[in-house]
Amino acid sequence: MNVGVFGYSGSLSDEKINRVSGLALEVGKTIAQYGHTLYTGGRDGIMELVSRGAKEMRGRVVGILPDGEVGNMYLDTRIDTGMDFTMRSLILVKSIDFVISIGGEVGTLFEIISAYCYEKPVILFEGTGGWTDRIDKVLIDKKYLDNRKLIEVKKVKSIEELREYLEVINDKM
Amino acid sequence: MNVGVFGYSGSLSDEKINRVSGLALEVGKTIAQYGHTLYTGGRDGIMELVSRGAKEMRGRVVGILPDGEVGNMYLDTRIDTGMDFTMRSLILVKSIDFVISIGGEVGTLFEIISAYCYEKPVILFEGTGGWTDRIDKVLIDKKYLDNRKLIEVKKVKSIEELREYLEVINDKM
Amino acid sequence: MNVGVFGYSGSLSDEKINRVSGLALEVGKTIAQYGHTLYTGGRDGIMELVSRGAKEMRGRVVGILPDGEVGNMYLDTRIDTGMDFTMRSLILVKSIDFVISIGGEVGTLFEIISAYCYEKPVILFEGTGGWTDRIDKVLIDKKYLDNRKLIEVKKVKSIEELREYLEVINDKM
Amino acid sequence: MNVGVFGYSGSLSDEKINRVSGLALEVGKTIAQYGHTLYTGGRDGIMELVSRGAKEMRGRVVGILPDGEVGNMYLDTRIDTGMDFTMRSLILVKSIDFVISIGGEVGTLFEIISAYCYEKPVILFEGTGGWTDRIDKVLIDKKYLDNRKLIEVKKVKSIEELREYLEVINDKM
Repeated sequence: MNVGVFGYSGSLSDEKINRVSGLALEVGKTIAQYGHTLYTGGRDGIMELVSRGAKEMRGRVVGILPDGEVGNMYLDTRIDTGMDFTMRSLILVKSIDFVISIGGEVGTLFEIISAYCYEKPVILFEGTGGWTDRIDKVLIDKKYLDNRKLIEVKKVKSIEELREYLEVINDKM
Repeated sequence: MNVGVFGYSGSLSDEKINRVSGLALEVGKTIAQYGHTLYTGGRDGIMELVSRGAKEMRGRVVGILPDGEVGNMYLDTRIDTGMDFTMRSLILVKSIDFVISIGGEVGTLFEIISAYCYEKPVILFEGTGGWTDRIDKVLIDKKYLDNRKLIEVKKVKSIEELREYLEVINDKM
Repeated sequence: MNVGVFGYSGSLSDEKINRVSGLALEVGKTIAQYGHTLYTGGRDGIMELVSRGAKEMRGRVVGILPDGEVGNMYLDTRIDTGMDFTMRSLILVKSIDFVISIGGEVGTLFEIISAYCYEKPVILFEGTGGWTDRIDKVLIDKKYLDNRKLIEVKKVKSIEELREYLEVINDKM
Repeated sequence: MNVGVFGYSGSLSDEKINRVSGLALEVGKTIAQYGHTLYTGGRDGIMELVSRGAKEMRGRVVGILPDGEVGNMYLDTRIDTGMDFTMRSLILVKSIDFVISIGGEVGTLFEIISAYCYEKPVILFEGTGGWTDRIDKVLIDKKYLDNRKLIEVKKVKSIEELREYLEVINDKM
């Protein structure tokens, strides 16, 4: 499957990224261990960390990049979308089967909402801060982003819970 | 200026659209009276109502359409983006100076967040339901969608308050 | 109708643009006189000249712009596509009913081919140089760009011939 | 490197595709043997044949797809661009280092011109028919598509000549 990861962009020394860097590496490794391909926006911050994790486990990494950018050093496949930063995120969202969200500013909120619009399951990694935690407040019945209730927003609190979710998905395949 | 309007799509007989149809017409008329060009997604529901209002005041109406669609009958300018429903909304957002939001499901939430990402001022028309009212719960300091606080989200409760806002903008031009 | 114009971009003092500047102004005026809306890529060179011509006759002008650009001073409607220079041309092509080509480098060739792909009639203004004249060599049966022969490529040699073509189109409406 | 292949789309039983199917398979195998990743538009015809060839040599295959399509069965990486058939070809062109063209109707002509616009080297596989052969007539000095002469259009007549070209490129890396 194609698994997306959203999250904080920016320098790895940034405090809010640094705080979850170990976790991001583990998420990348876990996706690769389950044989899934990792899709990200191809840039820095969480995108770079999960990609490094996936490559450490010899996984495949795809980066969906804004116009003219080359992306981080862990990408096997680079897609130059010719689009701006925000618009290219939609091609990322459309190309994945489900997505894991780690922290993140308004760009991550944008991606979470986009995933819901395209009916792609979103897994919030709780306790990672930013919009991943804050989105909780607006969920309808703690699970949905609109009244049609088409896609459930899931939450995991640990790598173990993430593994359980991936097991369930593998069983369904 | 180029003024966008977001809101419920769907049939005009839909109860949640019907409830705000008079208001939507007035918003369209008001935008035209101030000499602004109205930009919408070009389809039905609120998009059609504000466009009809603007045309009744001989305003100009631009519709940013998904691939292959012709849009409602009130459009002076049709843009066929070649893109899907969601993606084309970003071209709408990028092309406007500010936007007014009326009710709306998750597609409207997507557009509100997009406008914030592109630093376009958003005016929530309070009491119109849907995400226009619900977004309030996630605002930081009742005004912002992220910690960088670049753009204030505004609220108006009536056509009179909308006019006041448009006066302020005209004075700045 | 929505009428596109393709052609040389660049400075108006450039010799190859300067040579056809009077003609480009006349084409813009003519489009406006027939009540059509002019669509261009919104930038300099031929795009600017036809737009100026259209505005002199109080016509409407739409510019389909690359990411973040504001375009020339004659645009009534600006569309910021969020895309690169080349990609945004496809939104221009999709949004028009037919197109007139004046001179032009490989970017114009790209637009002529795009118009054919989308089955939009192309009118080559003969004698204006560049790819508008050079395309002749590859036409199949002097009229088509592929063996399916879906759309005829037309040629005009003067403003009078362009008017005749516009009359025929008006009669069909 | 990322190597694109353009060419006829359509059913494999179509005479003009059938005639070059052995060659297309060989081109796919060759790209994989040199360790390059194959990029195509992800659909049928030549796209499918080269992808099958690449997979037979355990190569990597990326498909850049129109909105909502799943593509042929040989894709390792699927990108859903959310765009129409023609527009999505530009993301393909932007994401590759160079491209090989085999036969093809006006859609292939569009892709050859696009590659030139983005300054990506184009290798025409001579004798494969369609626009790959026909483009010759419009080349300036038998090599260029505009007067700026930025990128040379190359031609190969056999798999051996293609291998020689790939050797030269490998030496430069």
